[in-house]
Amino acid sequence: MGEVIDFDLRLKEVADKVTVALDQLIPPASGPEADLMRAMRHAALANGKRMRPFFLLEAGAMFDAPEKSLLRAAAALECVHCYSLVHDDLPCMDDDDFRRGQPTVHKAFDEATAVLAGDALLTLAFKILSSRETHPDAEVRARLIERLADSAGARGMVGGQMIDMLESESPRDLNTITRMQRLKTGALISYATEAAGIIGHAHEQERSALAGFSNDLGLAYQIADDLLDATGDEQAVGKALAKDENAGKANFVTILGIDGARQRVQLLADQAKEHLAIFREKANILLQSVDFVLDRTH
Amino acid sequence: MGEVIDFDLRLKEVADKVTVALDQLIPPASGPEADLMRAMRHAALANGKRMRPFFLLEAGAMFDAPEKSLLRAAAALECVHCYSLVHDDLPCMDDDDFRRGQPTVHKAFDEATAVLAGDALLTLAFKILSSRETHPDAEVRARLIERLADSAGARGMVGGQMIDMLESESPRDLNTITRMQRLKTGALISYATEAAGIIGHAHEQERSALAGFSNDLGLAYQIADDLLDATGDEQAVGKALAKDENAGKANFVTILGIDGARQRVQLLADQAKEHLAIFREKANILLQSVDFVLDRTH
Repeated sequence: MGEVIDFDLRLKEVADKVTVALDQLIPPASGPEADLMRAMRHAALANGKRMRPFFLLEAGAMFDAPEKSLLRAAAALECVHCYSLVHDDLPCMDDDDFRRGQPTVHKAFDEATAVLAGDALLTLAFKILSSRETHPDAEVRARLIERLADSAGARGMVGGQMIDMLESESPRDLNTITRMQRLKTGALISYATEAAGIIGHAHEQERSALAGFSNDLGLAYQIADDLLDATGDEQAVGKALAKDENAGKANFVTILGIDGARQRVQLLADQAKEHLAIFREKANILLQSVDFVLDRTH
Repeated sequence: MGEVIDFDLRLKEVADKVTVALDQLIPPASGPEADLMRAMRHAALANGKRMRPFFLLEAGAMFDAPEKSLLRAAAALECVHCYSLVHDDLPCMDDDDFRRGQPTVHKAFDEATAVLAGDALLTLAFKILSSRETHPDAEVRARLIERLADSAGARGMVGGQMIDMLESESPRDLNTITRMQRLKTGALISYATEAAGIIGHAHEQERSALAGFSNDLGLAYQIADDLLDATGDEQAVGKALAKDENAGKANFVTILGIDGARQRVQLLADQAKEHLAIFREKANILLQSVDFVLDRTH
Protein backbone atom coordinates (compact mmCIF):
# COMPACT_ATOMS: atom_id res chain seq x y z
CA MET A 1 0.00 0.00 0.00
CA GLY A 2 3.00 2.38 0.14
CA GLU A 3 3.35 5.11 2.77
CA VAL A 4 0.74 5.49 5.46
CA ILE A 5 -0.14 9.14 5.80
CA ASP A 6 -1.45 11.35 8.58
CA PHE A 7 -4.94 12.07 7.35
CA ASP A 8 -5.90 14.70 9.86
CA LEU A 9 -2.88 16.69 8.73
CA ARG A 10 -3.49 16.10 5.03
CA LEU A 11 -7.16 17.09 5.25
CA LYS A 12 -6.20 20.17 7.20
CA GLU A 13 -3.66 21.18 4.53
CA VAL A 14 -6.23 20.84 1.75
CA ALA A 15 -8.88 22.65 3.81
CA ASP A 16 -6.49 25.54 4.43
CA LYS A 17 -5.61 25.85 0.73
CA VAL A 18 -9.30 25.92 -0.20
CA THR A 19 -10.07 28.50 2.47
CA VAL A 20 -7.26 30.74 1.23
CA ALA A 21 -8.53 30.39 -2.35
CA LEU A 22 -12.12 31.21 -1.30
CA ASP A 23 -10.91 34.19 0.70
CA GLN A 24 -9.31 35.57 -2.48
CA LEU A 25 -12.25 34.72 -4.74
CA ILE A 26 -15.12 36.13 -2.66
CA PRO A 27 -15.31 39.91 -3.15
CA PRO A 28 -14.12 41.99 -0.18
CA ALA A 29 -16.82 43.54 2.00
CA SER A 30 -17.26 47.15 0.86
CA GLY A 31 -19.97 49.60 -0.11
CA PRO A 32 -23.51 49.71 1.28
CA GLU A 33 -23.89 46.03 0.27
CA ALA A 34 -20.93 44.97 2.49
CA ASP A 35 -23.12 42.71 4.65
CA LEU A 36 -23.72 40.53 1.60
CA MET A 37 -20.02 39.77 1.28
CA ARG A 38 -19.71 39.36 5.04
CA ALA A 39 -22.48 36.78 4.93
CA MET A 40 -20.84 34.98 1.98
CA ARG A 41 -17.59 34.87 3.96
CA HIS A 42 -19.37 33.71 7.12
CA ALA A 43 -20.81 30.80 5.11
CA ALA A 44 -17.78 29.88 3.01
CA LEU A 45 -14.76 30.58 5.21
CA ALA A 46 -16.04 28.80 8.32
CA ASN A 47 -14.25 25.75 9.59
CA GLY A 48 -15.57 23.15 7.08
CA LYS A 49 -14.08 19.70 6.48
CA ARG A 50 -13.79 20.47 2.73
CA MET A 51 -14.37 16.83 1.87
CA ARG A 52 -15.47 17.56 -1.70
CA PRO A 53 -12.40 19.70 -2.45
CA PHE A 54 -10.24 16.99 -0.86
CA PHE A 55 -11.54 14.32 -3.24
CA LEU A 56 -11.26 16.67 -6.21
CA LEU A 57 -7.64 17.54 -5.42
CA GLU A 58 -6.55 13.99 -4.56
CA ALA A 59 -8.27 12.48 -7.61
CA GLY A 60 -6.74 15.20 -9.80
CA ALA A 61 -3.28 14.48 -8.42
CA MET A 62 -3.52 10.93 -9.88
CA PHE A 63 -3.51 12.52 -13.35
CA ASP A 64 -0.79 15.06 -12.54
CA ALA A 65 -3.38 17.75 -13.33
CA PRO A 66 -2.27 21.36 -12.74
CA GLU A 67 -2.93 22.24 -9.10
CA LYS A 68 -4.16 25.76 -9.84
CA SER A 69 -6.96 24.40 -12.05
CA LEU A 70 -7.89 21.79 -9.46
CA LEU A 71 -7.89 24.31 -6.65
CA ARG A 72 -10.16 26.76 -8.50
CA ALA A 73 -12.55 23.95 -9.44
CA ALA A 74 -12.51 22.82 -5.81
CA ALA A 75 -13.28 26.36 -4.64
CA ALA A 76 -16.20 26.58 -7.09
CA LEU A 77 -17.53 23.24 -5.87
CA GLU A 78 -17.23 24.37 -2.25
CA CYS A 79 -19.13 27.59 -3.09
CA VAL A 80 -22.02 25.44 -4.34
CA HIS A 81 -21.87 23.21 -1.27
CA CYS A 82 -21.84 26.24 1.06
CA TYR A 83 -24.69 28.01 -0.76
CA SER A 84 -26.79 24.84 -0.43
CA LEU A 85 -26.14 24.76 3.32
CA VAL A 86 -27.16 28.42 3.71
CA HIS A 87 -30.45 27.86 1.90
CA ASP A 88 -31.10 24.47 3.56
CA ASP A 89 -30.67 26.05 6.99
CA LEU A 90 -33.38 28.70 6.34
CA PRO A 91 -36.48 28.63 8.58
CA CYS A 92 -38.67 27.57 5.63
CA MET A 93 -36.35 24.62 4.97
CA ASP A 94 -34.55 22.71 7.77
CA ASP A 95 -34.64 25.67 10.19
CA ASP A 96 -31.18 25.21 11.70
CA ASP A 97 -29.55 27.74 14.04
CA PHE A 98 -26.09 26.25 14.23
CA ARG A 99 -23.64 25.04 11.57
CA ARG A 100 -19.92 24.32 11.66
CA GLY A 101 -19.88 25.47 15.27
CA GLN A 102 -21.26 28.94 14.58
CA PRO A 103 -24.69 30.56 14.05
CA THR A 104 -26.19 29.89 10.62
CA VAL A 105 -26.20 32.84 8.18
CA HIS A 106 -29.83 33.83 8.76
CA LYS A 107 -29.10 33.85 12.51
CA ALA A 108 -25.88 35.84 12.26
CA PHE A 109 -27.45 38.25 9.71
CA ASP A 110 -31.09 37.89 8.63
CA GLU A 111 -33.17 35.76 6.28
CA ALA A 112 -33.04 38.11 3.30
CA THR A 113 -29.25 38.32 3.58
CA ALA A 114 -29.04 34.51 3.79
CA VAL A 115 -31.13 34.07 0.62
CA LEU A 116 -28.98 36.62 -1.24
CA ALA A 117 -25.64 35.32 0.08
CA GLY A 118 -26.59 31.83 -1.09
CA ASP A 119 -27.58 33.19 -4.50
CA ALA A 120 -24.31 35.10 -4.76
CA LEU A 121 -22.19 32.05 -3.79
CA LEU A 122 -23.90 29.91 -6.43
CA THR A 123 -23.31 32.62 -9.04
CA LEU A 124 -19.68 32.99 -7.95
CA ALA A 125 -19.08 29.26 -8.53
CA PHE A 126 -19.83 29.67 -12.23
CA LYS A 127 -17.84 32.88 -12.42
CA ILE A 128 -14.79 31.07 -11.02
CA LEU A 129 -15.07 28.19 -13.51
CA SER A 130 -15.65 30.49 -16.50
CA SER A 131 -12.43 32.44 -15.98
CA ARG A 132 -9.35 31.73 -18.09
CA GLU A 133 -7.45 31.52 -14.80
CA THR A 134 -9.13 28.18 -14.15
CA HIS A 135 -7.95 26.52 -17.36
CA PRO A 136 -6.53 27.86 -20.64
CA ASP A 137 -8.83 25.59 -22.71
CA ALA A 138 -12.37 27.00 -22.88
CA GLU A 139 -13.72 23.56 -23.81
CA VAL A 140 -12.51 22.28 -20.44
CA ARG A 141 -14.09 25.24 -18.64
CA ALA A 142 -17.41 24.82 -20.45
CA ARG A 143 -17.46 21.12 -19.61
CA LEU A 144 -16.72 21.82 -15.93
CA ILE A 145 -19.60 24.32 -15.88
CA GLU A 146 -22.06 22.07 -17.69
CA ARG A 147 -21.44 19.16 -15.35
CA LEU A 148 -21.58 21.36 -12.25
CA ALA A 149 -24.92 22.77 -13.38
CA ASP A 150 -26.20 19.22 -13.96
CA SER A 151 -24.98 18.04 -10.55
CA ALA A 152 -26.37 21.04 -8.67
CA GLY A 153 -29.66 21.63 -10.53
CA ALA A 154 -33.24 20.34 -10.58
CA ARG A 155 -32.11 16.85 -11.62
CA GLY A 156 -29.26 16.87 -9.08
CA MET A 157 -28.71 18.44 -5.67
CA VAL A 158 -31.71 20.80 -5.70
CA GLY A 159 -33.98 17.99 -6.89
CA GLY A 160 -32.76 15.86 -3.98
CA GLN A 161 -33.40 18.66 -1.53
CA MET A 162 -36.92 19.02 -2.94
CA ILE A 163 -37.60 15.31 -2.33
CA ASP A 164 -36.21 15.63 1.19
CA MET A 165 -38.59 18.52 1.90
CA LEU A 166 -41.67 16.75 0.57
CA GLU A 167 -41.10 13.33 1.99
CA SER A 168 -40.98 14.43 5.57
CA GLU A 169 -44.76 14.11 5.34
CA SER A 170 -44.99 10.59 3.92
CA PRO A 171 -43.32 7.31 4.91
CA ARG A 172 -40.02 6.58 3.18
CA ASP A 173 -38.55 3.28 2.15
CA LEU A 174 -34.92 2.43 1.46
CA ASN A 175 -35.21 2.97 -2.30
CA THR A 176 -36.70 6.44 -1.91
CA ILE A 177 -34.06 7.50 0.59
CA THR A 178 -31.27 6.07 -1.53
CA ARG A 179 -32.42 7.98 -4.63
CA MET A 180 -32.96 11.17 -2.61
CA GLN A 181 -29.45 10.97 -1.16
CA ARG A 182 -27.84 10.15 -4.51
CA LEU A 183 -29.25 13.45 -5.74
CA LYS A 184 -28.98 15.58 -2.61
CA THR A 185 -25.44 14.76 -1.54
CA GLY A 186 -24.18 12.15 -4.02
CA ALA A 187 -24.30 14.38 -7.10
CA LEU A 188 -21.81 16.95 -5.75
CA ILE A 189 -19.48 14.27 -4.34
CA SER A 190 -19.48 12.62 -7.76
CA TYR A 191 -18.75 15.99 -9.33
CA ALA A 192 -15.56 16.20 -7.26
CA THR A 193 -13.95 13.23 -8.97
CA GLU A 194 -15.58 13.96 -12.33
CA ALA A 195 -14.10 17.47 -12.38
CA ALA A 196 -10.70 15.94 -11.57
CA GLY A 197 -11.12 13.63 -14.56
CA ILE A 198 -12.10 16.51 -16.86
CA ILE A 199 -9.13 18.65 -15.83
CA GLY A 200 -6.80 15.62 -15.87
CA HIS A 201 -8.00 14.49 -19.32
CA ALA A 202 -8.87 11.04 -17.93
CA HIS A 203 -9.70 8.27 -20.40
CA GLU A 204 -13.17 6.80 -20.68
CA GLN A 205 -12.28 3.78 -18.51
CA GLU A 206 -10.71 6.00 -15.86
CA ARG A 207 -13.72 8.33 -15.79
CA SER A 208 -16.00 5.38 -15.35
CA ALA A 209 -13.87 4.05 -12.47
CA LEU A 210 -13.97 7.46 -10.78
CA ALA A 211 -17.75 7.60 -11.20
CA GLY A 212 -18.15 4.16 -9.63
CA PHE A 213 -15.84 5.12 -6.79
CA SER A 214 -17.64 8.35 -5.95
CA ASN A 215 -21.11 6.82 -6.27
CA ASP A 216 -20.30 4.24 -3.63
CA LEU A 217 -18.35 6.70 -1.52
CA GLY A 218 -21.16 9.27 -1.62
CA LEU A 219 -23.76 6.82 -0.41
CA ALA A 220 -21.43 5.43 2.27
CA TYR A 221 -20.71 8.99 3.39
CA GLN A 222 -24.41 9.73 3.81
CA ILE A 223 -25.05 6.55 5.78
CA ALA A 224 -22.07 7.41 7.98
CA ASP A 225 -23.64 10.86 8.43
CA ASP A 226 -26.90 9.28 9.57
CA LEU A 227 -24.90 7.11 11.99
CA LEU A 228 -23.26 10.25 13.32
CA ASP A 229 -26.68 11.89 13.66
CA ALA A 230 -27.86 8.91 15.72
CA THR A 231 -24.75 8.26 17.84
CA GLY A 232 -22.47 11.31 17.66
CA ASP A 233 -21.60 14.04 20.12
CA GLU A 234 -23.32 17.36 19.37
CA GLN A 235 -20.40 19.43 20.62
CA ALA A 236 -17.86 17.64 18.42
CA VAL A 237 -20.08 17.66 15.32
CA GLY A 238 -20.90 21.36 15.58
CA LYS A 239 -24.59 21.13 14.72
CA ALA A 240 -27.85 19.79 16.18
CA LEU A 241 -28.12 15.98 16.09
CA ALA A 242 -30.88 13.35 16.19
CA LYS A 243 -32.85 15.74 13.98
CA ASP A 244 -34.34 13.02 11.80
CA GLU A 245 -35.39 10.97 14.78
CA ASN A 246 -36.92 13.97 16.53
CA ALA A 247 -38.77 14.94 13.34
CA GLY A 248 -40.04 11.39 12.86
CA LYS A 249 -38.14 11.22 9.54
CA ALA A 250 -36.86 7.89 8.30
CA ASN A 251 -33.18 7.68 7.34
CA PHE A 252 -30.70 4.88 6.69
CA VAL A 253 -30.21 4.21 10.40
CA THR A 254 -33.90 4.20 11.33
CA ILE A 255 -34.52 1.70 8.51
CA LEU A 256 -31.38 -0.48 8.67
CA GLY A 257 -30.63 -0.15 12.37
CA ILE A 258 -27.18 0.87 13.68
CA ASP A 259 -25.51 -2.48 12.99
CA GLY A 260 -27.18 -2.83 9.59
CA ALA A 261 -26.08 0.71 8.65
CA ARG A 262 -22.50 0.00 9.76
CA GLN A 263 -22.41 -3.15 7.62
CA ARG A 264 -23.74 -1.21 4.65
CA VAL A 265 -21.04 1.45 5.04
CA GLN A 266 -18.37 -1.29 5.10
CA LEU A 267 -19.78 -2.97 2.00
CA LEU A 268 -19.90 0.31 0.06
CA ALA A 269 -16.39 1.24 1.25
CA ASP A 270 -15.03 -2.07 -0.10
CA GLN A 271 -16.84 -1.57 -3.40
CA ALA A 272 -15.56 2.00 -3.68
CA LYS A 273 -11.98 0.82 -3.24
CA GLU A 274 -12.33 -1.91 -5.85
CA HIS A 275 -13.16 0.72 -8.48
CA LEU A 276 -9.74 2.28 -7.90
CA ALA A 277 -7.79 -0.87 -8.81
CA ILE A 278 -7.01 0.38 -12.33
CA PHE A 279 -5.05 3.32 -10.89
CA ARG A 280 -2.72 0.98 -8.92
CA GLU A 281 -0.42 2.70 -6.45
CA LYS A 282 -1.47 6.16 -7.67
CA ALA A 283 -4.75 5.62 -5.82
CA ASN A 284 -2.95 5.06 -2.51
CA ILE A 285 -4.21 8.23 -0.86
CA LEU A 286 -7.77 7.93 -2.12
CA LEU A 287 -7.88 4.33 -0.92
CA GLN A 288 -6.78 5.24 2.58
CA SER A 289 -9.09 8.24 2.66
CA VAL A 290 -12.18 6.04 2.28
CA ASP A 291 -11.86 4.43 5.73
CA PHE A 292 -10.79 7.70 7.24
CA VAL A 293 -13.80 9.74 6.12
CA LEU A 294 -16.27 6.97 6.90
CA ASP A 295 -14.92 6.47 10.39
CA ARG A 296 -15.20 10.09 11.49
CA THR A 297 -16.69 11.19 14.76
CA HIS A 298 -17.38 14.78 13.66
CA MET B 1 -36.14 56.07 -40.13
CA GLY B 2 -37.31 53.24 -42.43
CA GLU B 3 -40.39 51.12 -41.77
CA VAL B 4 -42.50 51.81 -38.73
CA ILE B 5 -43.30 48.53 -37.03
CA ASP B 6 -46.10 47.24 -34.84
CA PHE B 7 -44.32 46.90 -31.51
CA ASP B 8 -47.00 45.09 -29.61
CA LEU B 9 -46.90 42.41 -32.28
CA ARG B 10 -43.11 42.28 -32.42
CA LEU B 11 -42.73 42.04 -28.64
CA LYS B 12 -45.36 39.32 -28.57
CA GLU B 13 -43.50 37.34 -31.25
CA VAL B 14 -40.24 37.53 -29.31
CA ALA B 15 -41.97 36.70 -26.02
CA ASP B 16 -43.59 33.64 -27.59
CA LYS B 17 -40.26 32.39 -28.99
CA VAL B 18 -38.60 32.77 -25.60
CA THR B 19 -41.47 31.02 -23.83
CA VAL B 20 -41.27 28.09 -26.26
CA ALA B 21 -37.49 27.89 -25.71
CA LEU B 22 -37.89 27.97 -21.91
CA ASP B 23 -40.61 25.31 -22.09
CA GLN B 24 -38.13 23.03 -23.87
CA LEU B 25 -35.20 23.88 -21.60
CA ILE B 26 -36.85 23.48 -18.19
CA PRO B 27 -36.99 19.77 -17.26
CA PRO B 28 -40.47 18.23 -17.46
CA ALA B 29 -42.29 17.69 -14.15
CA SER B 30 -41.74 14.06 -13.15
CA GLY B 31 -40.67 11.97 -10.18
CA PRO B 32 -41.29 12.79 -6.52
CA GLU B 33 -39.58 16.17 -7.11
CA ALA B 34 -42.15 17.14 -9.80
CA ASP B 35 -43.37 20.17 -7.84
CA LEU B 36 -39.92 21.70 -8.25
CA MET B 37 -40.25 21.70 -12.03
CA ARG B 38 -43.87 22.86 -11.77
CA ALA B 39 -42.71 25.81 -9.69
CA MET B 40 -39.91 26.60 -12.17
CA ARG B 41 -42.47 26.56 -14.96
CA HIS B 42 -44.91 28.68 -12.97
CA ALA B 43 -42.18 31.29 -12.56
CA ALA B 44 -40.62 31.18 -16.03
CA LEU B 45 -43.49 30.45 -18.40
CA ALA B 46 -45.91 33.06 -17.04
CA ASN B 47 -46.96 35.94 -19.21
CA GLY B 48 -43.83 38.13 -18.94
CA LYS B 49 -42.94 41.04 -21.21
CA ARG B 50 -39.55 39.44 -21.94
CA MET B 51 -37.92 42.86 -22.33
CA ARG B 52 -34.39 41.58 -21.72
CA PRO B 53 -34.70 38.82 -24.34
CA PHE B 54 -36.19 41.39 -26.72
CA PHE B 55 -33.16 43.66 -26.46
CA LEU B 56 -30.78 40.71 -26.72
CA LEU B 57 -32.45 39.39 -29.87
CA GLU B 58 -32.87 42.80 -31.55
CA ALA B 59 -29.31 43.89 -30.74
CA GLY B 60 -28.01 40.54 -31.99
CA ALA B 61 -29.94 40.92 -35.24
CA MET B 62 -27.86 44.04 -36.02
CA PHE B 63 -24.80 41.75 -36.28
CA ASP B 64 -26.60 39.01 -38.21
CA ALA B 65 -25.77 36.72 -35.26
CA PRO B 66 -27.22 33.18 -35.46
CA GLU B 67 -30.73 33.25 -34.01
CA LYS B 68 -30.39 29.93 -32.18
CA SER B 69 -27.44 31.25 -30.17
CA LEU B 70 -29.27 34.49 -29.40
CA LEU B 71 -32.43 32.68 -28.37
CA ARG B 72 -30.61 30.33 -25.98
CA ALA B 73 -28.69 33.25 -24.45
CA ALA B 74 -32.00 35.12 -24.12
CA ALA B 75 -33.59 32.10 -22.41
CA ALA B 76 -30.66 31.89 -19.97
CA LEU B 77 -30.96 35.60 -19.21
CA GLU B 78 -34.70 35.24 -18.64
CA CYS B 79 -34.07 32.31 -16.24
CA VAL B 80 -31.88 34.61 -14.16
CA HIS B 81 -34.47 37.39 -14.26
CA CYS B 82 -37.26 34.97 -13.24
CA TYR B 83 -35.23 33.40 -10.42
CA SER B 84 -34.53 36.87 -9.04
CA LEU B 85 -38.26 37.66 -9.03
CA VAL B 86 -39.08 34.40 -7.21
CA HIS B 87 -36.55 35.13 -4.46
CA ASP B 88 -37.42 38.87 -4.30
CA ASP B 89 -41.08 38.01 -3.78
CA LEU B 90 -40.36 35.81 -0.72
CA PRO B 91 -41.85 36.92 2.63
CA CYS B 92 -38.37 37.69 4.00
CA MET B 93 -37.70 39.97 1.02
CA ASP B 94 -40.43 42.08 -0.66
CA ASP B 95 -43.25 39.77 0.48
CA ASP B 96 -45.35 39.92 -2.69
CA ASP B 97 -48.39 37.71 -3.31
CA PHE B 98 -49.02 38.57 -6.91
CA ARG B 99 -46.78 38.72 -9.99
CA ARG B 100 -47.51 38.76 -13.72
CA GLY B 101 -51.19 38.44 -12.92
CA GLN B 102 -50.85 35.20 -10.93
CA PRO B 103 -49.92 34.14 -7.38
CA THR B 104 -46.18 34.32 -6.65
CA VAL B 105 -44.36 30.96 -6.41
CA HIS B 106 -44.34 30.79 -2.61
CA LYS B 107 -48.11 31.45 -2.66
CA ALA B 108 -48.89 28.90 -5.38
CA PHE B 109 -46.53 26.32 -3.79
CA ASP B 110 -44.67 27.09 -0.54
CA GLU B 111 -41.60 28.99 0.61
CA ALA B 112 -39.18 26.07 0.48
CA THR B 113 -40.26 25.25 -3.07
CA ALA B 114 -39.84 28.90 -4.06
CA VAL B 115 -36.28 29.03 -2.68
CA LEU B 116 -35.39 25.79 -4.51
CA ALA B 117 -37.14 26.73 -7.78
CA GLY B 118 -35.18 30.00 -7.83
CA ASP B 119 -31.94 28.13 -7.16
CA ALA B 120 -32.71 25.66 -9.93
CA LEU B 121 -33.55 28.41 -12.46
CA LEU B 122 -30.26 30.20 -11.74
CA THR B 123 -28.37 26.94 -12.15
CA LEU B 124 -30.24 26.18 -15.37
CA ALA B 125 -29.15 29.51 -16.86
CA PHE B 126 -25.50 28.46 -16.68
CA LYS B 127 -26.31 24.98 -17.92
CA ILE B 128 -27.97 26.48 -21.01
CA LEU B 129 -25.01 28.75 -21.78
CA SER B 130 -22.42 26.00 -21.24
CA SER B 131 -23.96 23.68 -23.81
CA ARG B 132 -22.43 23.33 -27.28
CA GLU B 133 -25.96 23.92 -28.61
CA THR B 134 -25.64 27.58 -27.61
CA HIS B 135 -22.50 28.24 -29.65
CA PRO B 136 -19.89 25.99 -31.29
CA ASP B 137 -17.02 28.13 -29.92
CA ALA B 138 -16.37 27.37 -26.23
CA GLU B 139 -14.57 30.72 -25.84
CA VAL B 140 -17.84 32.46 -26.72
CA ARG B 141 -19.77 30.29 -24.24
CA ALA B 142 -17.25 30.88 -21.44
CA ARG B 143 -17.39 34.64 -22.07
CA LEU B 144 -21.21 34.63 -22.00
CA ILE B 145 -21.09 32.75 -18.68
CA GLU B 146 -18.44 34.95 -17.10
CA ARG B 147 -20.29 38.15 -17.93
CA LEU B 148 -23.64 36.73 -16.80
CA ALA B 149 -22.11 35.73 -13.48
CA ASP B 150 -20.65 39.24 -13.11
CA SER B 151 -23.97 40.89 -13.95
CA ALA B 152 -26.02 38.67 -11.64
CA GLY B 153 -23.65 38.30 -8.67
CA ALA B 154 -22.61 40.15 -5.53
CA ARG B 155 -21.24 43.07 -7.54
CA GLY B 156 -24.26 43.10 -9.85
CA MET B 157 -27.95 42.24 -9.45
CA VAL B 158 -27.72 40.49 -6.07
CA GLY B 159 -25.60 43.34 -4.68
CA GLY B 160 -28.28 45.80 -5.84
CA GLN B 161 -30.99 43.75 -4.20
CA MET B 162 -28.98 43.73 -0.97
CA ILE B 163 -28.75 47.53 -1.01
CA ASP B 164 -32.48 47.74 -1.70
CA MET B 165 -33.21 45.55 1.34
CA LEU B 166 -30.98 47.51 3.69
CA GLU B 167 -31.88 50.99 2.64
CA SER B 168 -35.54 50.66 3.38
CA GLU B 169 -34.46 51.59 6.89
CA SER B 170 -32.45 54.70 6.11
CA PRO B 171 -33.15 57.76 3.95
CA ARG B 172 -32.03 57.52 0.33
CA ASP B 173 -30.75 60.22 -1.97
CA LEU B 174 -30.69 60.24 -5.75
CA ASN B 175 -27.10 58.96 -5.99
CA THR B 176 -27.78 55.97 -3.74
CA ILE B 177 -30.93 55.03 -5.64
CA THR B 178 -29.20 55.44 -8.99
CA ARG B 179 -26.32 53.15 -7.98
CA MET B 180 -28.72 50.63 -6.44
CA GLN B 181 -30.80 50.51 -9.61
CA ARG B 182 -27.77 50.28 -11.91
CA LEU B 183 -26.89 47.10 -10.03
CA LYS B 184 -30.32 45.69 -9.30
CA THR B 185 -31.96 46.08 -12.70
CA GLY B 186 -29.38 47.82 -14.90
CA ALA B 187 -26.79 45.04 -14.83
CA LEU B 188 -29.06 42.42 -16.42
CA ILE B 189 -30.42 44.88 -19.01
CA SER B 190 -26.83 45.71 -19.95
CA TYR B 191 -26.08 42.01 -20.19
CA ALA B 192 -28.78 41.70 -22.86
CA THR B 193 -26.94 43.89 -25.35
CA GLU B 194 -23.51 42.75 -24.18
CA ALA B 195 -24.39 39.10 -24.86
CA ALA B 196 -25.62 40.14 -28.32
CA GLY B 197 -22.24 41.79 -28.92
CA ILE B 198 -20.33 38.69 -27.75
CA ILE B 199 -22.34 36.34 -29.97
CA GLY B 200 -22.24 38.82 -32.85
CA HIS B 201 -18.47 39.38 -32.55
CA ALA B 202 -19.02 43.13 -32.22
CA HIS B 203 -15.96 45.40 -32.44
CA GLU B 204 -14.71 47.37 -29.47
CA GLN B 205 -16.45 50.58 -30.60
CA GLU B 206 -19.72 48.75 -31.19
CA ARG B 207 -19.56 47.06 -27.78
CA SER B 208 -18.98 50.39 -26.15
CA ALA B 209 -21.96 51.92 -28.01
CA LEU B 210 -24.17 49.03 -26.89
CA ALA B 211 -23.00 49.48 -23.29
CA GLY B 212 -23.81 53.19 -23.39
CA PHE B 213 -27.20 52.48 -24.91
CA SER B 214 -28.19 49.88 -22.34
CA ASN B 215 -26.89 51.89 -19.39
CA ASP B 216 -29.15 54.79 -20.28
CA LEU B 217 -32.02 52.55 -21.27
CA GLY B 218 -31.81 50.55 -18.03
CA LEU B 219 -32.00 53.63 -15.86
CA ALA B 220 -34.81 55.14 -17.94
CA TYR B 221 -36.67 51.83 -17.68
CA GLN B 222 -36.43 51.87 -13.90
CA ILE B 223 -37.63 55.46 -13.62
CA ALA B 224 -40.52 54.57 -15.95
CA ASP B 225 -41.25 51.65 -13.62
CA ASP B 226 -41.36 53.99 -10.64
CA LEU B 227 -43.73 56.24 -12.62
CA LEU B 228 -45.92 53.23 -13.31
CA ASP B 229 -45.81 52.34 -9.61
CA ALA B 230 -47.03 55.85 -8.77
CA THR B 231 -49.59 56.37 -11.54
CA GLY B 232 -50.44 52.98 -13.10
CA ASP B 233 -53.48 50.75 -12.94
CA GLU B 234 -52.97 47.72 -10.68
CA GLN B 235 -55.17 45.47 -12.82
CA ALA B 236 -53.28 46.27 -16.03
CA VAL B 237 -49.84 45.98 -14.42
CA GLY B 238 -50.59 42.63 -12.78
CA LYS B 239 -48.90 43.31 -9.44
CA ALA B 240 -49.38 45.49 -6.36
CA LEU B 241 -48.59 49.17 -6.93
CA ALA B 242 -47.63 52.23 -4.84
CA LYS B 243 -45.54 49.81 -2.80
CA ASP B 244 -42.64 52.21 -2.29
CA GLU B 245 -44.94 55.02 -1.23
CA ASN B 246 -46.82 52.77 1.18
CA ALA B 247 -43.54 51.49 2.63
CA GLY B 248 -42.19 55.03 2.99
CA LYS B 249 -39.36 54.14 0.59
CA ALA B 250 -37.83 56.82 -1.58
CA ASN B 251 -37.64 56.16 -5.32
CA PHE B 252 -37.02 58.27 -8.43
CA VAL B 253 -40.59 59.64 -8.42
CA THR B 254 -40.70 60.51 -4.72
CA ILE B 255 -37.42 62.40 -5.14
CA LEU B 256 -37.83 63.96 -8.60
CA GLY B 257 -41.62 64.33 -8.64
CA ILE B 258 -43.76 63.01 -11.49
CA ASP B 259 -42.85 65.76 -13.96
CA GLY B 260 -39.17 65.66 -13.02
CA ALA B 261 -39.12 61.89 -13.44
CA ARG B 262 -40.80 62.16 -16.86
CA GLN B 263 -38.21 64.69 -17.99
CA ARG B 264 -35.42 62.43 -16.77
CA VAL B 265 -36.84 59.50 -18.72
CA GLN B 266 -36.96 61.65 -21.88
CA LEU B 267 -33.39 62.83 -21.41
CA LEU B 268 -32.09 59.29 -20.90
CA ALA B 269 -34.13 58.05 -23.87
CA ASP B 270 -32.53 60.67 -26.13
CA GLN B 271 -29.06 59.80 -24.83
CA ALA B 272 -29.71 56.09 -25.33
CA LYS B 273 -30.66 56.68 -28.95
CA GLU B 274 -27.58 58.78 -29.65
CA HIS B 275 -25.36 55.85 -28.74
CA LEU B 276 -26.92 53.86 -31.59
CA ALA B 277 -25.90 56.35 -34.30
CA ILE B 278 -22.90 54.26 -35.38
CA PHE B 279 -25.21 51.39 -36.36
CA ARG B 280 -27.18 53.62 -38.79
CA GLU B 281 -30.35 52.11 -40.21
CA LYS B 282 -29.58 48.72 -38.64
CA ALA B 283 -30.56 50.22 -35.30
CA ASN B 284 -34.02 51.16 -36.58
CA ILE B 285 -35.91 48.70 -34.42
CA LEU B 286 -33.89 49.35 -31.26
CA LEU B 287 -34.39 53.09 -31.74
CA GLN B 288 -38.14 52.76 -32.02
CA SER B 289 -38.26 50.32 -29.13
CA VAL B 290 -36.88 52.90 -26.71
CA ASP B 291 -39.95 55.13 -26.77
CA PHE B 292 -42.22 52.14 -26.83
CA VAL B 293 -40.88 50.48 -23.70
CA LEU B 294 -40.61 53.74 -21.78
CA ASP B 295 -44.17 54.72 -22.61
CA ARG B 296 -45.80 51.53 -21.39
CA THR B 297 -48.86 51.44 -19.17
CA HIS B 298 -48.30 47.88 -17.91
